[in-house]
Amino acid sequence: MNAEIIAVGSELLLGQIVNTNARFLSQQLAVLGVNVYYHTVVGDNPDRLKTAIEIAEQRSNLIIFTGGLGPTKDDLTKETIARHIGKELVMDQAALESIELYFRKTNRAMTENNRKQALVLDGSHILPNDHGMAPGMVVEDDGHIYMLLPGPPKEMEPMFSQYGALALSLQLETNEQIVSRVLRFFGIGEAALETEIIDIIDRQSNPTIAPLAGDSEVTLRLTAKHIDLNTANSMLDELENTINKRVGEFFYGYDNTSLLEELTKCLKQKKMTIAAAESLTGGMFQQELTSIPGASSVIKGGVVCYSAEVKQNVLKVKQETIEKQGVVSEQCAKELAENVAALVSADIGISFTGVAGPEELEGKPVGTVYIGIAIKGRPTIVEKLNLGGTRNANRIRTVKYGCLYLLRYLKESQNAK
Amino acid sequence: MNAEIIAVGSELLLGQIVNTNARFLSQQLAVLGVNVYYHTVVGDNPDRLKTAIEIAEQRSNLIIFTGGLGPTKDDLTKETIARHIGKELVMDQAALESIELYFRKTNRAMTENNRKQALVLDGSHILPNDHGMAPGMVVEDDGHIYMLLPGPPKEMEPMFSQYGALALSLQLETNEQIVSRVLRFFGIGEAALETEIIDIIDRQSNPTIAPLAGDSEVTLRLTAKHIDLNTANSMLDELENTINKRVGEFFYGYDNTSLLEELTKCLKQKKMTIAAAESLTGGMFQQELTSIPGASSVIKGGVVCYSAEVKQNVLKVKQETIEKQGVVSEQCAKELAENVAALVSADIGISFTGVAGPEELEGKPVGTVYIGIAIKGRPTIVEKLNLGGTRNANRIRTVKYGCLYLLRYLKESQNAK
Repeated sequence: MNAEIIAVGSELLLGQIVNTNARFLSQQLAVLGVNVYYHTVVGDNPDRLKTAIEIAEQRSNLIIFTGGLGPTKDDLTKETIARHIGKELVMDQAALESIELYFRKTNRAMTENNRKQALVLDGSHILPNDHGMAPGMVVEDDGHIYMLLPGPPKEMEPMFSQYGALALSLQLETNEQIVSRVLRFFGIGEAALETEIIDIIDRQSNPTIAPLAGDSEVTLRLTAKHIDLNTANSMLDELENTINKRVGEFFYGYDNTSLLEELTKCLKQKKMTIAAAESLTGGMFQQELTSIPGASSVIKGGVVCYSAEVKQNVLKVKQETIEKQGVVSEQCAKELAENVAALVSADIGISFTGVAGPEELEGKPVGTVYIGIAIKGRPTIVEKLNLGGTRNANRIRTVKYGCLYLLRYLKESQNAK
Repeated sequence: MNAEIIAVGSELLLGQIVNTNARFLSQQLAVLGVNVYYHTVVGDNPDRLKTAIEIAEQRSNLIIFTGGLGPTKDDLTKETIARHIGKELVMDQAALESIELYFRKTNRAMTENNRKQALVLDGSHILPNDHGMAPGMVVEDDGHIYMLLPGPPKEMEPMFSQYGALALSLQLETNEQIVSRVLRFFGIGEAALETEIIDIIDRQSNPTIAPLAGDSEVTLRLTAKHIDLNTANSMLDELENTINKRVGEFFYGYDNTSLLEELTKCLKQKKMTIAAAESLTGGMFQQELTSIPGASSVIKGGVVCYSAEVKQNVLKVKQETIEKQGVVSEQCAKELAENVAALVSADIGISFTGVAGPEELEGKPVGTVYIGIAIKGRPTIVEKLNLGGTRNANRIRTVKYGCLYLLRYLKESQNAK
């Protein structure tokens, strides 16, 4: 099966947003074994969209559309496809009810143009939208499969993963099972990781290995094909072992996990609570930890100690420490970690202090970071980093290093037992 | 002039990278007044690339290619175009010398396939590559302009800005100036905003109005064309006034600003400091505020009071309040805002408490939110929200509503003076 992805939206052609949907769908289709030969972006213009559909029909049998399912007058994807393949648009009761419910829950008035979002192509298979209003749909006509998905990634991605991929697998004829597993690494660059395992990458054809870098992490997607699912999984296990013999110290988890999720899991398992004192990171560690449902069993809270005054008055860092060693120092990180744990009565205290930039501080260069970790009944440790990125990239990496160091320290203490 | 952007590279079709080049070039072309009607992505396959060129020639007179100028065997953009328009590839001495210099400077050995990068289309205008090896080029043939740019954004972007844009302006015949302005709104949905101003949108052709929704905000991009720059700007001013007479209460700023940046500006101007007590939002408000350089003059810090215990022990919320009214209550929000300002000695205290979900809390439904605002010398106010989104969407909207309410209250106090 050959696919083409058509993104509809003038905002893409004006450069207001970037087409991340095409990337996401391409990755997903690769896993399903579908070849993607073209991406197209076209504006909110029915004539030009029609031309794009006609071209796509000549070269692909699966055409996936993203965008243009919104409530406004310039959202015309389903109307254009309906006219093109000669199908009616009909009201989908389930979608309409879900839109009405959304408005009732948010106490907002539903307008007439929101009803338009519940119109679907007659005879299509509906893909529910769990994160927004416009339903997706799949329809077959004259040897082509048309899949319509909403434009916002936070609606489109879960819709495709939950419902779209399944709808497509039913259309695929292969007996081969395709299994995919993502290995996540932090603390090593993409080029360095690739250098370590280049001979393995070059040797492989099944499973395949696809490295990808982003958000200062590196992932390897391993994909195996086999008629037997167990064999495919064993192939992945074996390859994973070979890779982690070389670079296992940087490996931290699978698929869509994050360092913070791994930390949450570990704390829950040990029934330990954590508190944070955040200067450099300004609350990022706590915000991300509390974004995980069920966080309340592991995090009680903490202090954002952006100013020296808050470090001293609220977190009781000694005046001597601030005067002699500064707020960006090993000793300050140590006191912050220990004192925030005490203030909040948590088992673990973690602290982040450093020079965010753009200017240096206390004669220390931008990117100097101290992370303090105080675990009840164990010696407090402080790790130092010298980061070279932008202000925001450094904050993100600092939080991730904090998780990595804490996970390592927690595992050490486990091994010591 | 109508343009199409063709990105060449199988890594795009596999979803390994995202096509940020198309976005960058679209933005740049919009400024130059060039209409972009299509983006296309095609793999490293000469036949499919040839088909894409033929289609583009039928609908655009400017075709910009990114990618496929590298040294390896699968880089075939210029070879394919050369064959298609019947031009030879010739060695460009300046490009060759610059490649040789690059290898000498980095102490690396130059390989034969790097010489290939200095081959250019005969008769083309060369765009120097200041950040890599492959030169860009512009060539005219049979009524079409072909521009070839390298794929890596760090090479392509400066090449276009420094040399490509100028080469294009020389080809453009228009004297019209194009001015664009983005109006940002929060607290109103896209459909509701459009309903309010639908007659204005329908009437307009110059300036044009393009609505866009994302991150729970709505923006309107107004674009005017006129030979006189001042007249174009006045046309935008007039349209902006007309729009804001209807929906001005939701308008908060221009172009790439954010509610947090507007708040920072306002606090700096008033020389006021702020502290936050964050339960529901877990540190998000402070993390975002401190991500803006220079935040230290307006934010001292605050407390992430995720547990009831921290609310009581660190922020001194009365036991009676927690027992009788609960942690998600108007009274709790009031005490949190007032007490965090006192704890940190800030002029303003803001608090966020609510039910994040997935389960309800204290019999209050998911999405119930209280925002407390305590400004020194003024009565503390508490705003209540009923949000209907996901856990994370609700946290983001809560922070934004906090900024909006605080900005309004600060402006009221200004008007009262």
